[in-house]
Amino acid sequence: MIRIALGQIEIVPGRPDVNSAFMLKMIEQARQQGADIIIFPELAIPGYLLGDTWEQQGFLRECEECGRQVISASIDICVVFGNVGVDWQRHGDDGRVRKYNALFTAYQGKLWGNDNFPYPFRIKTLHPNYREFDDTRHFYSLRKLALETGRTVENLLQPVQVDYKDTKLTLGGILCEDGWNEYYPVNPVATLSTKNKLDVIINISCSPFTLGKNDKRNRVFSKQAAAAGIPLVYVNAVGLQNNGKTVYTFDGFSSVYDGQGQVIATCSTFQQELKVVEIPPQSHPLATSAESDKDDTIENVYQALTYGIRKFMVQTGLKKVVIGVSGGIDSAVNTALFANAIGSENLLLVNMPSIYNSSTTKGLSEQLAANLGCSYTIFPIQEAVDLTIKQITSTPVTQLQTGTQSTLKVSSFVAENIQARDRSARVLAGLAAAFGGAFTCNANKSELTVGYSTLYGDQAGFIAALGDLWKHQVYALGQYLNTKVFSTPVIPQGIFDIIPSAELSFDQAVEEGKGDPLYYPYHDYLFQAFIEWWNRATPEDILTWYAAGELEERLGCEQGLTIKLFATPAEFITDLEKWWKLYTGLGVAKRIQAPPILAVSRRAYGFDHREAQNQPYFTRAYNILKTRLLEKI
Amino acid sequence: MIRIALGQIEIVPGRPDVNSAFMLKMIEQARQQGADIIIFPELAIPGYLLGDTWEQQGFLRECEECGRQVISASIDICVVFGNVGVDWQRHGDDGRVRKYNALFTAYQGKLWGNDNFPYPFRIKTLHPNYREFDDTRHFYSLRKLALETGRTVENLLQPVQVDYKDTKLTLGGILCEDGWNEYYPVNPVATLSTKNKLDVIINISCSPFTLGKNDKRNRVFSKQAAAAGIPLVYVNAVGLQNNGKTVYTFDGFSSVYDGQGQVIATCSTFQQELKVVEIPPQSHPLATSAESDKDDTIENVYQALTYGIRKFMVQTGLKKVVIGVSGGIDSAVNTALFANAIGSENLLLVNMPSIYNSSTTKGLSEQLAANLGCSYTIFPIQEAVDLTIKQITSTPVTQLQTGTQSTLKVSSFVAENIQARDRSARVLAGLAAAFGGAFTCNANKSELTVGYSTLYGDQAGFIAALGDLWKHQVYALGQYLNTKVFSTPVIPQGIFDIIPSAELSFDQAVEEGKGDPLYYPYHDYLFQAFIEWWNRATPEDILTWYAAGELEERLGCEQGLTIKLFATPAEFITDLEKWWKLYTGLGVAKRIQAPPILAVSRRAYGFDHREAQNQPYFTRAYNILKTRLLEKI
Repeated sequence: MIRIALGQIEIVPGRPDVNSAFMLKMIEQARQQGADIIIFPELAIPGYLLGDTWEQQGFLRECEECGRQVISASIDICVVFGNVGVDWQRHGDDGRVRKYNALFTAYQGKLWGNDNFPYPFRIKTLHPNYREFDDTRHFYSLRKLALETGRTVENLLQPVQVDYKDTKLTLGGILCEDGWNEYYPVNPVATLSTKNKLDVIINISCSPFTLGKNDKRNRVFSKQAAAAGIPLVYVNAVGLQNNGKTVYTFDGFSSVYDGQGQVIATCSTFQQELKVVEIPPQSHPLATSAESDKDDTIENVYQALTYGIRKFMVQTGLKKVVIGVSGGIDSAVNTALFANAIGSENLLLVNMPSIYNSSTTKGLSEQLAANLGCSYTIFPIQEAVDLTIKQITSTPVTQLQTGTQSTLKVSSFVAENIQARDRSARVLAGLAAAFGGAFTCNANKSELTVGYSTLYGDQAGFIAALGDLWKHQVYALGQYLNTKVFSTPVIPQGIFDIIPSAELSFDQAVEEGKGDPLYYPYHDYLFQAFIEWWNRATPEDILTWYAAGELEERLGCEQGLTIKLFATPAEFITDLEKWWKLYTGLGVAKRIQAPPILAVSRRAYGFDHREAQNQPYFTRAYNILKTRLLEKI
Repeated sequence: MIRIALGQIEIVPGRPDVNSAFMLKMIEQARQQGADIIIFPELAIPGYLLGDTWEQQGFLRECEECGRQVISASIDICVVFGNVGVDWQRHGDDGRVRKYNALFTAYQGKLWGNDNFPYPFRIKTLHPNYREFDDTRHFYSLRKLALETGRTVENLLQPVQVDYKDTKLTLGGILCEDGWNEYYPVNPVATLSTKNKLDVIINISCSPFTLGKNDKRNRVFSKQAAAAGIPLVYVNAVGLQNNGKTVYTFDGFSSVYDGQGQVIATCSTFQQELKVVEIPPQSHPLATSAESDKDDTIENVYQALTYGIRKFMVQTGLKKVVIGVSGGIDSAVNTALFANAIGSENLLLVNMPSIYNSSTTKGLSEQLAANLGCSYTIFPIQEAVDLTIKQITSTPVTQLQTGTQSTLKVSSFVAENIQARDRSARVLAGLAAAFGGAFTCNANKSELTVGYSTLYGDQAGFIAALGDLWKHQVYALGQYLNTKVFSTPVIPQGIFDIIPSAELSFDQAVEEGKGDPLYYPYHDYLFQAFIEWWNRATPEDILTWYAAGELEERLGCEQGLTIKLFATPAEFITDLEKWWKLYTGLGVAKRIQAPPILAVSRRAYGFDHREAQNQPYFTRAYNILKTRLLEKI
């Protein structure tokens, strides 16, 4: 029997001092609880998402130094942890000093495992190179090492043997993606477990939260443990890490699988935890209820966003937040989310009416603020907007070659954007600075997809907490906040009932039922196919499915919607092309300057979904199909 | 003798229709000129920097279809070109359909080369995975294919044999990075040329402009050709491609090296060109003058930026540009650059004085506009700024739980940022929309490094054309524009002479010699060590060199500067820590929302330099050294 401690720590990225100090404390706790082994997550010392900080040799030396302290602390307890493994004598493909994403096994103050491997640590075999992951940019993989040394991957995949007390422990250690080998031509767990008699398989991870991930992980890892017939311990981190444009929460949820693949222990989500588990298990498997399996619900969204907001405030050192509240659903949900996450006393809500804003939305804004007990101010913008328009239309422009003078005109569209920028860049930014904080971006993913927001206007802010939620998810989150979190309708029902609108002109008058050009029950799903599907859908695919009458089924939206929305193929095509052009055109330009987005989906904007500002494109196959459809009429 | 046509085309990224149509035209021209072979750049059909467009199967099918057209056109001429090679039966590590960055060899309407390789094309062996490059994210490399198939890289590296007329051509084709193998454990050119009797080595590239790159390329490729004793043809693209945050020009400069490594022909830079060259050469090598070798001069900067601005306007469909001109060097240089690139008739220059702006800078702005013959307007901001400050300080904030009312205060620092945002988000954005164009960001790299600019203020704009230039390079570019481009001082001398200042308060009064907190002759070089050095310098390195008295030499700045600027180590340390914190802290937050930057250096902000919004860090070694230095006093 081995007593294994799962060290589910919060990793603060780029703070080896903080992380290693905390690990030392947890090692001491585990020792007191009689653990034989304590396991920490992947890259527990440096953190995972650090951008190009890996190119600073001073930082690498620091990580090594902190690692040595952890190794020194491994007295009478075996410590398995992730850190960067540096080979100062070799270089990577980029010519910089070679770095491995490595698993270290320490016991009695020294490292174990270099008896059958070139290094006193194990290295990651499979480097994820999709979504937000950049492992291949910084680290040398076991696959590359195999090619370089003329050995096979199978030969290099070795367990670590530790002379522990009066026995020999054989630990099969892998790192994160090594366990997600579905599409790789290598199977690290199978290789390790068939060649050796392992006591335990250890997967140290630093795996960001994604809706539905843990459900899949349980299926994948459970199968691995059962196939090997060996218990598998998965240790993940909690905390918040980012790639600049995209911010990820880490949910922990470390788990132990027995040799039959049953889950016998789990740590909580989004919390640090030290949990000691005995292997082989002395207890019965956990009944994995359907509820605990399902991790793509609005409750999971709520948990991730709340945790993410709290941690992002700590990370940035901010305490106070200004939120522009329009009386619409996005700002209301964002407000309730922030009020719950950081306390309503730290919020200043601002309603910024112009002549276009209805008394309905003004009333709803105040009601929201009152329900939450926030500080509230009404900050009219009409005077400033009028001044700007007057100045633009009356200030003479002189052509200095000819001496001719002229003035410029302001169209209604230009006037709409002037209002949006006035609210954000003038009012919210000014108020936030005076209030001693930052202001939020309330944009959702549907808007961000097609750039239905104004640059330096409603697209601005310090973080877009709802930026990875489709409009229908924003509504669902609002309902969840009212019913489950606050247990009272802090978000007034009127905000759910009103038509979504920017209220930037009389054409968007909510009291006349006029609003956004997007019909979310359809466009949310269309856009999801563009961005979130593993094989991105393009207009060619959409039109093919439309012509075949299977579009709604493919998209997963309500049946019969396209007939209801578009009287003819021509109308359907006009709508499709309009949004595709915006998504791949102006939308990209705006996203380049968008705030960081808190990610929950399997594809968030920013560093996860990478994009170039290129010209919108329609394939020949699309154009042929389009011509055919239009000729039919 | 073989007549080889270098098809140095402009690649429009994401436009396979445009690119393949142009290739067909050039194939016809080459045929008429009696060429045996025409060679096009890497990924000539799809383009190179496309973000995640590679995940759209419709796009892949389109590229294949365009490729088939090019193949069909290869009648009586051998066509070598880059395209994506798709294996629809296999998948990549991410589970998506497998894609190769491939070299195709077509003759008489069919592909050649599958007699000794699993595909009728060759694939890239070495995938760059540093700076802006993301090859490993999208493409399967020959190294991975070797591991998967159990063959060696050497075995898979095969030339293509073509039965051409009454002879057999043996072409050693590689792709871009394959020729830059310095740090890889594989040498594609040596492998290909020692195992086979090649007629020619072909390197098809899509290689972005970087200061100093061609000088290095000549040394590297010349050595390869000489070592192999075989002529080497390098074909690169021209055009503009981007990764969203960072915009790259492609300079072409395709070259032919003879078997002794001498350059025997080059195409021009930043221009499409079809050039026919005979191999073995019938002509003498080009005398490579010292001047043509040196490609890191301000002339190169000027060429790249001018080309980049022109192409970016085409790419985005913009025709008109508004520039805020302050009378300072950055806006003046940007104005002269844009006036020359797109015509002064397309510019509207705006001076936006507040009470803090001197008559000196106002006069210089107008002089600049007059010299260039631009449209010019003076757009005062004081009334709007006063209104904003009055509104913020007088609008009551109500605590809705307690009913207490209060108002906010505006500090002088907050007031400075209000001015900056008023200028950009209110005036420039409004004027640009009314003028029918966009407005520029005039920020330079020194400012961007430490976030010495206001978000939604002077950091805003549609592109930061000077965003990859240090302040001293901006001055040098200004001199170059006056003396070499316009041959008359369009930028008034006073703009060079005045102290750099934001003029946002009386503390920055230029007429009293007060200005920026940065001393550029020192800080430019300090920041360069942080960001542009291959091994990034950190405060630990800087302080070590300072203590050893070798800092200026290391940084490459003027000797004796630190003594002049900092009376004591304490002052030196305060300055160092201040900027390091800003560079790795608030500077990151601002860059996340910064405009696209036109890249010229070997490390530009954005997608080239990747970064996370983490806490600034000082290593233990730094802190020990700091304590020692401070105790000495």
